[in-house]
Amino acid sequence: MNPRRITELFNIKYPIIQGGMIWASGHKLVSAVSNAGGLGLLGAGSMYPHVLKEHIQKTKNSTHKPYGVNIPLLYADLDQILEIIIEEKVPIVFTSAGNPKTYTPILKEAGIKVVHVVSSVKFALKAQEAGVDAIVAEGFEAGGHNGREESTTLTLIPQVAKAIDIPLMAAGGIATGQGMLAAMALGADGVQVGSRFVATHEASSHMSFKQAVVDAGEGATHLTLKELAPVRLLRNKFWQDVQELYTSNPSIEDLKQLLGRARAKKGMFEGDMNEGELEIGQISGLIDDIIPAAQVVENMINEFNTAKQELSKVNF
Amino acid sequence: MNPRRITELFNIKYPIIQGGMIWASGHKLVSAVSNAGGLGLLGAGSMYPHVLKEHIQKTKNSTHKPYGVNIPLLYADLDQILEIIIEEKVPIVFTSAGNPKTYTPILKEAGIKVVHVVSSVKFALKAQEAGVDAIVAEGFEAGGHNGREESTTLTLIPQVAKAIDIPLMAAGGIATGQGMLAAMALGADGVQVGSRFVATHEASSHMSFKQAVVDAGEGATHLTLKELAPVRLLRNKFWQDVQELYTSNPSIEDLKQLLGRARAKKGMFEGDMNEGELEIGQISGLIDDIIPAAQVVENMINEFNTAKQELSKVNF
Repeated sequence: MNPRRITELFNIKYPIIQGGMIWASGHKLVSAVSNAGGLGLLGAGSMYPHVLKEHIQKTKNSTHKPYGVNIPLLYADLDQILEIIIEEKVPIVFTSAGNPKTYTPILKEAGIKVVHVVSSVKFALKAQEAGVDAIVAEGFEAGGHNGREESTTLTLIPQVAKAIDIPLMAAGGIATGQGMLAAMALGADGVQVGSRFVATHEASSHMSFKQAVVDAGEGATHLTLKELAPVRLLRNKFWQDVQELYTSNPSIEDLKQLLGRARAKKGMFEGDMNEGELEIGQISGLIDDIIPAAQVVENMINEFNTAKQELSKVNF
Repeated sequence: MNPRRITELFNIKYPIIQGGMIWASGHKLVSAVSNAGGLGLLGAGSMYPHVLKEHIQKTKNSTHKPYGVNIPLLYADLDQILEIIIEEKVPIVFTSAGNPKTYTPILKEAGIKVVHVVSSVKFALKAQEAGVDAIVAEGFEAGGHNGREESTTLTLIPQVAKAIDIPLMAAGGIATGQGMLAAMALGADGVQVGSRFVATHEASSHMSFKQAVVDAGEGATHLTLKELAPVRLLRNKFWQDVQELYTSNPSIEDLKQLLGRARAKKGMFEGDMNEGELEIGQISGLIDDIIPAAQVVENMINEFNTAKQELSKVNF
């Protein structure tokens, strides 16, 4: 555990990464986080190439600090996206899903720092082998897409920390400085935070979705659609429809048909809290306000320092 | 967070509780842990009343330190068990499953310290209202029976800590001093440890099961049988049989019939690694040796101190 491995790698003040979430992580959120001393990541997963280009340019206009882009490697227009990223000289790329083996060398060749997001030791080792600069290991409690092993952050982080040599960020279940301290106690060098940044003024998520995150209590989310790709969702009407379909022993085709297209946009961006797919983490149960993104970063650092101070008094 | 709330409540040296696990937590393990400065708990869930009585008496003969008994409140011979516990002047009782409302006053009346194990804020508040002295909050990664909300320890502990006033122990995913430090960073006053104590010399578990815990890697366990009562098991042949049954859309009766009787004993105590039900936590992936129980306690304290020292160097 050494936060400098993260802050020096990215040239940032605090080892707090704002996850590149679809329909939430646009230029406003990214520049706010980067200006506050963390690392903001644009969420390319919900952007057409020309939209991503616009967001990159607007980010560059609103911060001189490092920022990055998260790219799901299953993205349809992947080559076009990579071209834009290289052209625009994006300094940092986080990749998720897919295999980092093909694209890591291309990005590194262009002088870009590359991080891959995994949910197991096995894929952490593969990513390290592919040449990435650092790893994000994300636990079962995380919102959105998620690993098949269902390893929680508390059990995943020490196992990954033991297995790899490169810097490690923990993700899943972290929304506070106490959570960051816990992750670092387990061996992480820094943290990636998702849900907490959805409930901020600058997130591009629909206001109804931000409010739903604030309103979420314990047990409000559930990991479902495991036959397609496991995804953690708020238990809204769409989720209920999925559970109902499950009682009829559905085929994968049946599930795909119910999911349809643009469910995530409908919910998180357009604000349809009934029919939309609402991706958020378990830690939403602990989030109860919508605040500026810079305040999230500041709170986390203050909470971290206070909790560290409290722990320092414990003597065995 | 204040470990003294636990050490002073139980009059022990370290806030490390050894979970009262079925087929593992007999008098040898309990006295070893209590003698090492933790709190050992007998697992009444797998003992006939006369067997429990014998274990209590043997524990009293092998330690003068505080110890306790874990009782699942769904136990068939509950009244008989309670009578023995009061007669034998057992100082501490941890209850799990069931409703603490009826039995907490009876135990407290007899001068016994009472702790209830929960997996949600909702039931933590109910237990506090029932008058228990402290709470164990156990996350999704824990072995054996488990909550329906699927809240992980990382997300559960801060929410419970925020809601209750009485002392709080974290359980689920904790096998090291780093894990203990993480739990305390999240607001727990102490920890309950299960899986790590199964792989000890003194656990009464079958040697084949202890070895299976050591051999378990990531993703080796799975929370299943959710229609009966969610239980985290090693993915052995019996587990595969359950998954196969699921593909036929089984009724609850079908599941009960497959489970049958004494599956847990067959696996964990008699050593049938194929047909037995093998309850263990996700953190088994991190456990790679069978050591004396006192060594577990000592390692945890050393790891805690080292990790705390490392964190103290972090300055933001």
